[in-house]
Amino acid sequence: MALPKQSEDFPAWYQQVVKGAELAENSLARGSMVIRPYGYAIWEAIQAGVDRRIKATGHSNVYFPLLIPQSLLDKEADHVEGFAPQVAVVTHGGGSKLEEPLIIRPTSETIIWSTYAKWIQSYRDLPLLLNQWANVVRWEMRTRLFLRTSEFLWQEGHTAHETAPEAIEEARMILMDVYRATVEEDFAIPVLTGRKSAAERFPGAIETLAIEAMMRDGKALQAGTSHYLGQNFAKAYDVQFLGREGKQEYPFATSWGVSTRLVGGLIMAHGDDKGLRLPPKLAPFQVVIVPIYRDDAKATVMEAVYRIKQSLGDVRVKIDDREEHRPGYKFNEWELRGVPIRLEIGPRDLEAGQVMAYRRDTGEKAPIALESLSSAIAEMLTDIQKSLFQSALDFRTEHTFSPGSYDELVDLLSSVAGFVQGGWCGSPECETKVKDRTKATIRVLPLDPADREGNCIVCGSAATELATWAQSY
Amino acid sequence: MALPKQSEDFPAWYQQVVKGAELAENSLARGSMVIRPYGYAIWEAIQAGVDRRIKATGHSNVYFPLLIPQSLLDKEADHVEGFAPQVAVVTHGGGSKLEEPLIIRPTSETIIWSTYAKWIQSYRDLPLLLNQWANVVRWEMRTRLFLRTSEFLWQEGHTAHETAPEAIEEARMILMDVYRATVEEDFAIPVLTGRKSAAERFPGAIETLAIEAMMRDGKALQAGTSHYLGQNFAKAYDVQFLGREGKQEYPFATSWGVSTRLVGGLIMAHGDDKGLRLPPKLAPFQVVIVPIYRDDAKATVMEAVYRIKQSLGDVRVKIDDREEHRPGYKFNEWELRGVPIRLEIGPRDLEAGQVMAYRRDTGEKAPIALESLSSAIAEMLTDIQKSLFQSALDFRTEHTFSPGSYDELVDLLSSVAGFVQGGWCGSPECETKVKDRTKATIRVLPLDPADREGNCIVCGSAATELATWAQSY
Repeated sequence: MALPKQSEDFPAWYQQVVKGAELAENSLARGSMVIRPYGYAIWEAIQAGVDRRIKATGHSNVYFPLLIPQSLLDKEADHVEGFAPQVAVVTHGGGSKLEEPLIIRPTSETIIWSTYAKWIQSYRDLPLLLNQWANVVRWEMRTRLFLRTSEFLWQEGHTAHETAPEAIEEARMILMDVYRATVEEDFAIPVLTGRKSAAERFPGAIETLAIEAMMRDGKALQAGTSHYLGQNFAKAYDVQFLGREGKQEYPFATSWGVSTRLVGGLIMAHGDDKGLRLPPKLAPFQVVIVPIYRDDAKATVMEAVYRIKQSLGDVRVKIDDREEHRPGYKFNEWELRGVPIRLEIGPRDLEAGQVMAYRRDTGEKAPIALESLSSAIAEMLTDIQKSLFQSALDFRTEHTFSPGSYDELVDLLSSVAGFVQGGWCGSPECETKVKDRTKATIRVLPLDPADREGNCIVCGSAATELATWAQSY
Repeated sequence: MALPKQSEDFPAWYQQVVKGAELAENSLARGSMVIRPYGYAIWEAIQAGVDRRIKATGHSNVYFPLLIPQSLLDKEADHVEGFAPQVAVVTHGGGSKLEEPLIIRPTSETIIWSTYAKWIQSYRDLPLLLNQWANVVRWEMRTRLFLRTSEFLWQEGHTAHETAPEAIEEARMILMDVYRATVEEDFAIPVLTGRKSAAERFPGAIETLAIEAMMRDGKALQAGTSHYLGQNFAKAYDVQFLGREGKQEYPFATSWGVSTRLVGGLIMAHGDDKGLRLPPKLAPFQVVIVPIYRDDAKATVMEAVYRIKQSLGDVRVKIDDREEHRPGYKFNEWELRGVPIRLEIGPRDLEAGQVMAYRRDTGEKAPIALESLSSAIAEMLTDIQKSLFQSALDFRTEHTFSPGSYDELVDLLSSVAGFVQGGWCGSPECETKVKDRTKATIRVLPLDPADREGNCIVCGSAATELATWAQSY
């Protein structure tokens, strides 16, 4: 399969990689997606890392229903304004028209907070630290596999706290210790962490925090969000608890999520003109073994291949023993599918007591002595994980700019040069001006805004923030 | 909380256990359920065991969409007849009426087989061995937490094979090596395995296999099903492949699933008048430690408690250090929640170099020397797992009958005595006669019907099968 070059047509490259690597495909209902085995195995590896960190930080998993009475959505004004246009509505069930339509959850704050009203009675019930893995539906006009689909899979955490500072700390902890840690450590993708501007906040949130990653076309991908919701949902759903002082109080909330969109980020942050490059921590197969032999050597080679797989222990090894394809075909296919290491094993290699190892990330190929194979593979996997991160970090550094003028800012953003940083006065007018001119948005503001010298790069008045602008998915 | 006695009101006992142990509760949309942290932790343990076995037998996980165009359901006649009355229908999305209504999947044969049409081209694409973990919706008139809810969670496997014998073997392998193995080994519940009668088959199946477990009220619970679908779905969705002989052929299908209903079975197969009794393999906490002290001994006792938890390594230990509750309250609560072992630790125990251990399954209480605690707990957990199985097996044996006459059969079934076995001539008339009279159904027929002597217990003509009847959930 001929893959378009990233530099020539990035969207076509993305589409062909998703298809060629058999990650996912469009399904029949508009904007819906089938996640194929290889794509789903990546998602399972992602889930395992996120779930482990969510539990290690004291949260439990639960499950709330898919279907929500429409009237429930209407109780939080900003929330309904944000989501009502996107919902799918069930009007009939069991052959009859329903008395009240049910919406398919676009997110679960409404059903969860209406239930928390029963669960939260005393300060002793707090903090309540819950999470669920679920599917959600948001009607989208333009969809793209993994990045924007009408149905997607995600986890959504929903916590309740006695005090505002506790809830704010929770939202930050999730951002840093769960989301940033997962994406930097497992995905090998560096992220910017920060606050969103008011215009980019989650409907109903007081503060939205996000991690933003740079894709190899210079665009930003919002890879995870963590919201401080204040008492908005507690008040909308009348959740009160008896506080330590004996008074009825409203708890403070957070919610936070990452989704199958992360798979799209993984593809676009590391992929190259040959296809995927998967970090070993998320790769369904960390090593693929391609046996190379003529008929008379088959038994010898295959016996060695199975022995080698055995010797690699916990490493996830795929043996590609298909008879109907030649080695060259298999090389291309596994490069497209991003397997970190390929081992080529033929009779001459075995006689020489070695195998040939190909590194997907660098394209280097070199023999490894069989006697030290296990430790060499372990080291190489660690090194690939590190060097993919470094390579993405270098790419981001090269594509991050600090223009000296508004015109320069506009030029950089219009040409999708990457992340563009500059002072911002904090006014929605300046934010909108840039967006109208370039379609770029402010991706993040610093988590802790420091006193800042200098001026707003848009209007020239005093800057209060250092904003990072970019085109985004 | 006063729990009703099982012998006096089993349904009320069930409802109170689900509520009191904080497993689940009803949600706002009719028939929908919130699975609470303790209930969900049990489900996660169930999933882990099922998923491990599904993967160990060569299957991969995937994800197909929630929403299915209504017209797709109509293509397999028996299937649509079975499921159309149960579906929830989405008629509006993104603020507009949809051109074609979408149904929420009640099961996924239709969307999966319409997709397989693209994936299956050659015999080299077979067998195709896929599974998904998903939520499904079936509109139910009467619902009960875990046992029958409008939305439930499950896994559904969908496989395609070159030949009928291969598909039949797959359906049996799943029944025996995945479902029976999981329920007997992890749940410690013995199951009958067998075929369903034609009347009880899955809509669209040629053969439905099932595992059936006995609950402590004498009723049967269908705990998992595995279907041989023949070529019905391949033909309905026009899935053909180029066979080894160079001809276009239709593949043979299976589908199989277990759901959150299993949690209900776990409760009803092992629970007693004090509440849940959880098998160690599925217990969110295998050991609960209740520290017992007056104020002056707190530091000493708690220091020992943390040390003991540490010493128990991989055992899942909960320390109940709540100050607002007395030990007696905690004992009752953890008995209700079914924790297999309770350790009581006070200053005198520590001085004597021991702790008191209470076994939830037998109610026995005895000291264990601290120096051998770790091995004693490991042994006790193994023993509890075994003895819960033995106890359920004994119960089933005591409640399995072979009546000598039709009247006796009717008496046994009418009084919900348990499993009732007898010869059956295979006619739907005899099956219906028993059902109309007693509401009981044939739960299983032997996997491999052997030549059978004797007569049908209903009509007296020659028997072809040994049927097991029971009242059921």
